[in-house]
Amino acid sequence: MTRPDNTTGYLSTRQVIELNRKFARSDAALGFDVSDQFVPFNQMDDMFTRALWDESIKSPLTEAFFNSYRMEFAPRRGEGFTQRDFALRNASWVISDIISNRASQTGKREGFQAAIDYDTPVNPVQVPLREPAQESAGIKRLARLFGADLVGITEVDPRWHYANRVNTKDLTPAPNQLPDDISHVIVMGHAMNADLVNTYPSALAGTSTGLEYSHETAIVIQLASYLRNLGFEAIASMNDTALVVPYAIKAGLGEYGRNQMVLTRQFGPRVRFSKIFTNMPLQADEPKPAGIRQYCEICTRCADACPPKALPFGAPTRQPENRSTINGVKKWTANCEKCFGYWAQLKTDCAICMRVCPFNRTNSLTDRLWFRLATGSNGMRKLALYIDRLRGPRTRLKPGKWWSRIQQ
Amino acid sequence: MTRPDNTTGYLSTRQVIELNRKFARSDAALGFDVSDQFVPFNQMDDMFTRALWDESIKSPLTEAFFNSYRMEFAPRRGEGFTQRDFALRNASWVISDIISNRASQTGKREGFQAAIDYDTPVNPVQVPLREPAQESAGIKRLARLFGADLVGITEVDPRWHYANRVNTKDLTPAPNQLPDDISHVIVMGHAMNADLVNTYPSALAGTSTGLEYSHETAIVIQLASYLRNLGFEAIASMNDTALVVPYAIKAGLGEYGRNQMVLTRQFGPRVRFSKIFTNMPLQADEPKPAGIRQYCEICTRCADACPPKALPFGAPTRQPENRSTINGVKKWTANCEKCFGYWAQLKTDCAICMRVCPFNRTNSLTDRLWFRLATGSNGMRKLALYIDRLRGPRTRLKPGKWWSRIQQ
Repeated sequence: MTRPDNTTGYLSTRQVIELNRKFARSDAALGFDVSDQFVPFNQMDDMFTRALWDESIKSPLTEAFFNSYRMEFAPRRGEGFTQRDFALRNASWVISDIISNRASQTGKREGFQAAIDYDTPVNPVQVPLREPAQESAGIKRLARLFGADLVGITEVDPRWHYANRVNTKDLTPAPNQLPDDISHVIVMGHAMNADLVNTYPSALAGTSTGLEYSHETAIVIQLASYLRNLGFEAIASMNDTALVVPYAIKAGLGEYGRNQMVLTRQFGPRVRFSKIFTNMPLQADEPKPAGIRQYCEICTRCADACPPKALPFGAPTRQPENRSTINGVKKWTANCEKCFGYWAQLKTDCAICMRVCPFNRTNSLTDRLWFRLATGSNGMRKLALYIDRLRGPRTRLKPGKWWSRIQQ
Repeated sequence: MTRPDNTTGYLSTRQVIELNRKFARSDAALGFDVSDQFVPFNQMDDMFTRALWDESIKSPLTEAFFNSYRMEFAPRRGEGFTQRDFALRNASWVISDIISNRASQTGKREGFQAAIDYDTPVNPVQVPLREPAQESAGIKRLARLFGADLVGITEVDPRWHYANRVNTKDLTPAPNQLPDDISHVIVMGHAMNADLVNTYPSALAGTSTGLEYSHETAIVIQLASYLRNLGFEAIASMNDTALVVPYAIKAGLGEYGRNQMVLTRQFGPRVRFSKIFTNMPLQADEPKPAGIRQYCEICTRCADACPPKALPFGAPTRQPENRSTINGVKKWTANCEKCFGYWAQLKTDCAICMRVCPFNRTNSLTDRLWFRLATGSNGMRKLALYIDRLRGPRTRLKPGKWWSRIQQ
């Protein structure tokens, strides 16, 4: 079962100008500043793909990084990076791996370099729908029933779709296909385990990433299948097809942070996102900025803590760092080459910038009070910064300590 | 990647006698009464398999039951059985379906009529282990990290393994294989959604079943992969390979009820089970009977409520109802033919006996107090029965009402 082969793909300058106009109001509310020279991002240029074809990136270290996800190549070198740490991290990824590997012979890495194929067809009989507001409320509750922690809905916005996806068999650009009548995107957030995130950097910490990739795989597939069973197109998508960060922000789930992540009210940056493209008539959410971005303007916790110094200290800029940076959007931009270079050294993902972010909070009273200050008036924000400097960045939980709690 | 092909399979009378002796103490604690004429159950005789080959069971109704899991054949006939109800039920099953269908060409229906194949190999390097008690505590916490609601560990007991599994391609018996050195079984419980269970009987209610099959698929695969990454055999198993009810009871997760289900302290019968067979040296749990079974002796809520009158009203018996009943175990025994016949009529699973069971409780103070009474002295138990008769069986939540709550 495959989807119709209509192409979105590249946008002309004229189309970009039209989209910039169409979304001017929500762009402004979100702090998006997209120039008319904007060019959609080509997935060939993302760091994970470049590490496969770009000789300036590819190295024995990047090879070893990818290989470490198979136990026979997992390195072992001390606390947080032992066989047991890699064993748990790699096991947490397995459900995601089963889906992303099942069609590898066709060059489709589902959920990463291709959308997830239809496991069940679109029902030729469409169910009678209630009002878009009611259907949207229902879909959000069902997303939670399937296990999502956050859900928002937004209109389709082709600026954030990859100009090309990647054929992972021969590492060539492939058309990035969606049916023509897709109108809405359902964006889901999947909260990461707080204790595991506190062990970054470590292979153990990567378990928090693998767990949510496995969760989101199951959840997007089930919810998309429900929509198709009702008679509508529904393309389950993870990191493939489109950039999820702008979509999550448009859907009202959070704000863009200095650490390049979506900062949510509920979990700060400690959340991953998945999405479903559908032609079901739904009601789009309004962005709900809470003032988190303004706090990022005066805070540099993440940039301070980044070992390879990949994060920006200054104001948002339109200057691209390298070919892995999207063009024509004024934003805080990481140097992804430095960032991924550090991952390759570690042989696991790094998210120190997630751990130390003061919005990576618990639900404790003090953390809730601090959030109020940080998202309040200018004066309150400065007081929040002062308090955060006093208490210092969230310290790393030693992986050995995590294990001894588990095994006691 | 496949597992070694050693066979457990049939047991000789001598082996049965030895096992009955070995497990005499825990059998007695559990209320298991296994005769020396006991014969392990052949999976060819389970109702779902018989409905495929046994002409006395197979009918247009049973065909329509199986077909209803595909939308093109899903019937539509009123509240709880509309396209939307089947859409949600069928979507909830999809993750389980992906795994159980992926090797259908080989006659293996993974998770149902065959164990789940190894997605990752056994690491040739075994990790140094801590004491069995610590490893067991660790595995239980990791099972919860992966999403299990209950976990227990028990010794392998071949009496409960299927004499044969089923080749689903040609519907013939196939050897039921496990490596020779499997010593322990990790049993996990997966709580079903209470509101959905309250809508039994309905296609909508089947969503509570599908959700947990999809959850348990992901959870057993991940936890088993972790054990293999540590260098041990670990066979992920759902309904395949062995009867999970006696294993769950041996692992201390609950007691056997009149409704044929494991009644847990936490969720009563509202829970499904999965299991992992491993050769890792672990510490077996002790059964912890809480007095639930004694309450079943005086209560007939489930038998009263069963539309096809498939459940027993009397004391446990050794008399088999039909070839789908295990031989030589004194127990409450349902007439599975009547039970499944009703499912076929409904075109969905029925669990009215789960809904009305007084142990299917919430965590409210009154429900907790009632549980104390029901599992107390003889006098308290009778008072609990009296109270339960006064308040009547848990009434069905109308599917239409469930949907209007979701879509408001």
